[in-house]
Amino acid sequence: MPDSPIITLTTDFGGSDTYVAQMKGAIARVDPRLRVVDLTHQAPAHDVHAAGYLLETGYAAFPRRTVHVVVVDPGVGTPRRALALRSERYDFLGPDNGVLSRILDRERDLRVYAIDERRFATGSVSRTFEGRDRFAPAAAWLAGGLDPAELGPAVDDCIRLSRFRHIDSSGALTIAALHADRFGNVVLDVTAAELEDWLGCAPRRDFAPRLLDLELPVERFGATFADAPPGESLLLINSAGYLEVAVNRGRADALGCLRRGRHVRLTPPA
Amino acid sequence: MPDSPIITLTTDFGGSDTYVAQMKGAIARVDPRLRVVDLTHQAPAHDVHAAGYLLETGYAAFPRRTVHVVVVDPGVGTPRRALALRSERYDFLGPDNGVLSRILDRERDLRVYAIDERRFATGSVSRTFEGRDRFAPAAAWLAGGLDPAELGPAVDDCIRLSRFRHIDSSGALTIAALHADRFGNVVLDVTAAELEDWLGCAPRRDFAPRLLDLELPVERFGATFADAPPGESLLLINSAGYLEVAVNRGRADALGCLRRGRHVRLTPPA
Amino acid sequence: MPDSPIITLTTDFGGSDTYVAQMKGAIARVDPRLRVVDLTHQAPAHDVHAAGYLLETGYAAFPRRTVHVVVVDPGVGTPRRALALRSERYDFLGPDNGVLSRILDRERDLRVYAIDERRFATGSVSRTFEGRDRFAPAAAWLAGGLDPAELGPAVDDCIRLSRFRHIDSSGALTIAALHADRFGNVVLDVTAAELEDWLGCAPRRDFAPRLLDLELPVERFGATFADAPPGESLLLINSAGYLEVAVNRGRADALGCLRRGRHVRLTPPA
Repeated sequence: MPDSPIITLTTDFGGSDTYVAQMKGAIARVDPRLRVVDLTHQAPAHDVHAAGYLLETGYAAFPRRTVHVVVVDPGVGTPRRALALRSERYDFLGPDNGVLSRILDRERDLRVYAIDERRFATGSVSRTFEGRDRFAPAAAWLAGGLDPAELGPAVDDCIRLSRFRHIDSSGALTIAALHADRFGNVVLDVTAAELEDWLGCAPRRDFAPRLLDLELPVERFGATFADAPPGESLLLINSAGYLEVAVNRGRADALGCLRRGRHVRLTPPA
Repeated sequence: MPDSPIITLTTDFGGSDTYVAQMKGAIARVDPRLRVVDLTHQAPAHDVHAAGYLLETGYAAFPRRTVHVVVVDPGVGTPRRALALRSERYDFLGPDNGVLSRILDRERDLRVYAIDERRFATGSVSRTFEGRDRFAPAAAWLAGGLDPAELGPAVDDCIRLSRFRHIDSSGALTIAALHADRFGNVVLDVTAAELEDWLGCAPRRDFAPRLLDLELPVERFGATFADAPPGESLLLINSAGYLEVAVNRGRADALGCLRRGRHVRLTPPA
Repeated sequence: MPDSPIITLTTDFGGSDTYVAQMKGAIARVDPRLRVVDLTHQAPAHDVHAAGYLLETGYAAFPRRTVHVVVVDPGVGTPRRALALRSERYDFLGPDNGVLSRILDRERDLRVYAIDERRFATGSVSRTFEGRDRFAPAAAWLAGGLDPAELGPAVDDCIRLSRFRHIDSSGALTIAALHADRFGNVVLDVTAAELEDWLGCAPRRDFAPRLLDLELPVERFGATFADAPPGESLLLINSAGYLEVAVNRGRADALGCLRRGRHVRLTPPA
């Protein structure tokens, strides 16, 4: 089946249990030929903000019509809705808890449905594991060509999370630290385009916002890690298009108290 | 090959080495079209009890005729036997050290064989890595249609581990804590059916066994995590059918000293 | 496509980000039918020595013509070259930073090329993520049958790392500890053949080099872990052909200060 779409999985399930494998088993029970790729299963437990960012970093690398499933779901088993989104390029499935907010902002021609139809779930839906019993089989059906409108009624009021963003009277921009990656690079919740809007121009190599609250010695803007000497810090636009604090061959998350969830205040160039 | 079975792998190999990949390479050398799914590779090192539980949680989510391989094998290289089990639904391969005990209890129409035939192993079998040299190729042959009786002689005395279970004169039931999952939920080694047998009825919402030795404040029985207020604990039947201690949006493994291997005493309702 | 080769990935990307998935997406955009296997993504960050060893442990388990990609790349975005190696059996892709040194030593009939041609990369190559934009698509093209000479000019001066190795006047052999595996087994950077060269014969069961600098109580040489009593240490040749310090059902990396990067001095038998 050369044209069969890929299904990707993004969860906070980690690797020490079989939850991810059970989702893959449920997909295989619908069609054993479907191909599944792990986006990540190390989203911080219950953190829909971080999971939404991680999904955003990865989904667009895949071919059109890939089906992306995200299960970070502290409200599993409650009446919160399960959603299926179809955009011009991809399908997305996840709980209605805001985890899909960045997709709603970024994708075009979106149609959104509640996943209600029991015939596209496994026989009995566990109240603690809808990832396996509801999302995985629905993803397999979509990958097989099902129209998402078959899954349930259209939805026009799904939950969107707002991103923290504040510009004070001095012109300083305050945003959140979203995620620290494996290398200790710390992602700030501002994209290259948003940064240009704030600055009024593209950042130059000598762009050196003081990260005031953190008193970080970030004194240069670069294009890649090696644009700072080993052990020194810089700002760059990461491969997902977000502003990132990095230390060449070192860890930015060891600088001051720069960590996920903290607010960071960027002061404009003098 | 739409009908080719899936092979799953359950090990204690972790992710920092290439052991798992080498097993997949050995499978691909038998037939590169075979599909392999990781059940988990984070079973606690050498812990055949926990690995047996993890296999049990995951295997039945897969289509019939999936071949499940478990390699948690502190006795690798010794004369302990390598086993192949065929049940009505699935095949299982693993060392004869008790790791397959729960499968022996749960599956039907079982036939058990020792894996002896050198022609279904790689050319030279390493004494430190039978996962790659013996189990992986045998799994690939079974997935390709080999009758397990071809692998070696029938076995009727394979090792079974007993599960800890004690009911004292007051009616209290003592069992083991089997596993703490990624979210800190702690699984107790008693199934829903066994719990009903002990209670004489299905647990009600106000079922609140005091976990005496641990003095845990578990005061409710629920159907899903959100049946307790955030930060509070509850008991529920997990998605694998076992009794579990959970904290809504928190970690049960941070309560008292509830951890893998500890015995827990449940006292009956008043 | 039963004959399509497999692509393996070896990186230091870890599992908490989507970097690995993005590489898989980039491969799928060239050909969604290609099959990808993770060798490991837990190589220590930026450690080209350890990553080269890990690749060596895993690659030869795969069928001929497997395409092996290794991305441990502290110099990403700098003018360091990207390499494609074709040997008689396999293809290899990685940065020109020494990570492929052990492959250059071990494989035969090698041809080496720089990856230069933009038409085999994604549209715009990120300066922070060439794994996704340059290596992954080039691997997909090779797996599809591309001659590596199409990727760029032949190279005859790629970087080779030297392995630490010193024999002093007393005959003692000093080598590096390369890697500690999941079980705490510590791999020393000397192969079975090199050990025989140094000893003048195959090690016997009573071969008991004193690991002088570490004052380790390693007093036996075995064929498998169980050749030492539980809790006691031994030396053995691991499944990759290297000398390894192990403790039966215990952790050798808890002995003295035996850890990655340390030098270990082996004294010859009396």
